[in-house]
Amino acid sequence: MKTPDIQPLRALHASRTIEIADQTRLPGEWKIVSLTSAGEAAHAIRTMQVRGAPLIGATAAYGLALALYVDPSNSGLRDAYALLLATRPTAVNLRWALDRVVKAVSSLAAASRAEAAWREADAIAEEDVKTNLAIGHYGVALIKRLAADGHNPVQILTHCNAGALATLGWGTATAPIYVAHDSNVAVHVWVSETRPRMQGARLTAWELRASKVPHTLIVDAAGALLMQQGRVDLILVGADRVAANGDVCNKIGTYLKALAARANDVPFYVAFPTTTIDWNVEDALDDIPIEERSGDEVRKIRGLDDDGDFAEVTIAPKATAVANPAFDVTPAELVTAIITERGVVRAPYDRELARITS
Amino acid sequence: MKTPDIQPLRALHASRTIEIADQTRLPGEWKIVSLTSAGEAAHAIRTMQVRGAPLIGATAAYGLALALYVDPSNSGLRDAYALLLATRPTAVNLRWALDRVVKAVSSLAAASRAEAAWREADAIAEEDVKTNLAIGHYGVALIKRLAADGHNPVQILTHCNAGALATLGWGTATAPIYVAHDSNVAVHVWVSETRPRMQGARLTAWELRASKVPHTLIVDAAGALLMQQGRVDLILVGADRVAANGDVCNKIGTYLKALAARANDVPFYVAFPTTTIDWNVEDALDDIPIEERSGDEVRKIRGLDDDGDFAEVTIAPKATAVANPAFDVTPAELVTAIITERGVVRAPYDRELARITS
Repeated sequence: MKTPDIQPLRALHASRTIEIADQTRLPGEWKIVSLTSAGEAAHAIRTMQVRGAPLIGATAAYGLALALYVDPSNSGLRDAYALLLATRPTAVNLRWALDRVVKAVSSLAAASRAEAAWREADAIAEEDVKTNLAIGHYGVALIKRLAADGHNPVQILTHCNAGALATLGWGTATAPIYVAHDSNVAVHVWVSETRPRMQGARLTAWELRASKVPHTLIVDAAGALLMQQGRVDLILVGADRVAANGDVCNKIGTYLKALAARANDVPFYVAFPTTTIDWNVEDALDDIPIEERSGDEVRKIRGLDDDGDFAEVTIAPKATAVANPAFDVTPAELVTAIITERGVVRAPYDRELARITS
Repeated sequence: MKTPDIQPLRALHASRTIEIADQTRLPGEWKIVSLTSAGEAAHAIRTMQVRGAPLIGATAAYGLALALYVDPSNSGLRDAYALLLATRPTAVNLRWALDRVVKAVSSLAAASRAEAAWREADAIAEEDVKTNLAIGHYGVALIKRLAADGHNPVQILTHCNAGALATLGWGTATAPIYVAHDSNVAVHVWVSETRPRMQGARLTAWELRASKVPHTLIVDAAGALLMQQGRVDLILVGADRVAANGDVCNKIGTYLKALAARANDVPFYVAFPTTTIDWNVEDALDDIPIEERSGDEVRKIRGLDDDGDFAEVTIAPKATAVANPAFDVTPAELVTAIITERGVVRAPYDRELARITS
């Protein structure tokens, strides 16, 4: 299997160290930070040096292994689990990865727990890369079909960062783009900046540049005009949580892109691993709580000053009331197809998602 | 007629001075700048100390009068006209206002030109206030109907700044809001920040606060989620240019709000003076050129630093390609009604717009 070009996490077993790229320093610099304890891993997740559900999960899994090298007792396991779980309480993958490590080690003798935990973390990390590559291979067929129809380059619009930086490699929404680029299919990516936290401008533009994929940055509202003008061939986004019926909960702004895509006959694709499906959610708008984040994310914008140092500017006074919902829900009826590691499925999603995962 | 609460321009005939509020200082401070020559007026328009089509037009008209006090000759008139017209070559109102002053004075003897020009500028300014107040009175009926249906407060979403600050008073899209507020109809305004230049966050939030109208700031993408959640009762925006068939060219992001409004059964209203209609435009997407502005508006964001001074941060490297279209086109079929100084009209707009202006 090809090694990903961008690896935001590397595990060094010999030195019991995980090296992560500090994503709060992007797009300024690719700064590697070494984590050698559960406390350091927890700090990296809490401060968003690592972010993106799959990457958070893997970092926490290795963090638990690091804790067990120091104290493999039941209480040591319990304390490290609690410490790591508390870093980002809403991330589904965090609990999933920690539970998986606990399950792998809890019945073992204390002396063999740390090694077993490290192996389980390795497995989680390797599976993520494989999953993303599978998404890439299924998804690239959709891109190649447009290329065959004469779209040169194929114009892809994405939102937020469901990229290599959010995973152990290749990303979810970006995997088909990277596979296309590596297969010499000409692509060009419209990168929606993704207010308020600017993950598109800061992270997606950075990783596409690092991978030499042609791209252009736009404000979030500009995508619809590009669709009106016939300058977008497909939309490709990730998902934070997907209902059993195919309703997609993803970064705020995703739904608007789906509406504009429908109005302008642009296919709208969502790429995610099947672990993202929440089978308990029947009505996404009613059942998925929309995280309301700090108003300061809207009032203040972080970037680089003239000296290349991080700085913040305020665009609205503290007294201005702000609403800052982080996600929206795209109804399944607006989704042209879903790309998973088990294949591409189309409506009816309730039946098709159940079929590929059964 | 009631005096507007917010007056971004005041003409002082006795001292041959126009006082403007420097809008580049907002939301930090309300700083009055005195203009006493055509050169100073041109500078104020060029540097966007005044902005918004009606306000630009009136400032230019007074600027021409100021020039004629110094040199009322034909060549003086011609030079000042050229100077002022070159400040913002794309603003339709700028040429319209300048032409109107020229028409009023060109047949007069030199000695009486300056006074006549000042009177014409006064007329332009007064008509703008009257027009906006008429828009307010026609538009408030739509808001009152929702209030009577039990919406308390009536939740209004607006985009960009078609407000008092863009005009001589009351604004266009904001006029119905101010009239409602003054009539004790409870309203709450969702203010869409309006990337890239942040006119919503910087200007609309500022003027609503100054007028004590309850409001909440959101990122541009958040409006659609609020509509999904049933938290928006109507949308009210302005227009930069309107085709004879009712297609609306307005600040980038307007079209997305119209799509989300349609998908969620929220009425979408556009308010503008009938002078905004371009009878020569038959197909807005084909015939209206979409202004492409500097990529640095996207790459860099201006705000206040911790000391309250203006500062800029960079969110994407200079090397990142940027597309920055300033407007989009909302098809007439998505417009629930148009509010003008001559009344509220509904589809078919080609017939109805012609009827009220004939």
